[in-house]
Amino acid sequence: MISNNEYFDGTVKSLGYTSATGKSTIGVMEPGEYEFGTSSKENMIVVEGELIALLPGETEWKSFKAGTSFKVGANTSFKVKSVGQTSYLCQYA
Amino acid sequence: MISNNEYFDGTVKSLGYTSATGKSTIGVMEPGEYEFGTSSKENMIVVEGELIALLPGETEWKSFKAGTSFKVGANTSFKVKSVGQTSYLCQYA
Repeated sequence: MISNNEYFDGTVKSLGYTSATGKSTIGVMEPGEYEFGTSSKENMIVVEGELIALLPGETEWKSFKAGTSFKVGANTSFKVKSVGQTSYLCQYA
Repeated sequence: MISNNEYFDGTVKSLGYTSATGKSTIGVMEPGEYEFGTSSKENMIVVEGELIALLPGETEWKSFKAGTSFKVGANTSFKVKSVGQTSYLCQYA
């Protein structure tokens, strides 16, 4: 099964599946600022576009461009600003 | 707008958007074999999983694993076999 997920009134959409290494989603964010809660740890990889992220415990926003990634632990939250439409891969493994 | 696309009875799903370099889709394929027609040229990048592709004019299937890519011209068709669930980025620029 490929799951369809929508968040923030459809301004973030993703498709969920299982890779060789575990559960993943690939998705797209419209331009804007979002706060995501995590129930498991996540590895977020920017596919195209740019995310500016405020990670848990940090006070400075950092830019993540295509091909770069950041990790977030379980049971926390993080903020991202999407610059233009940004596609991403989120690995839960 | 992030577009929702489904092909082959929902065994291939993708999300369409526009990056800095042009139109793209990111998608997921269920295990299976598919034939896709192209209306414009495409650069297909395997994100996770593996696609085995029979490209236009070729007689041998070739394996493309995560991080590898192949190009297909406009107005042709190509076949792919998805090994497990495979996620991909398709750039139309």
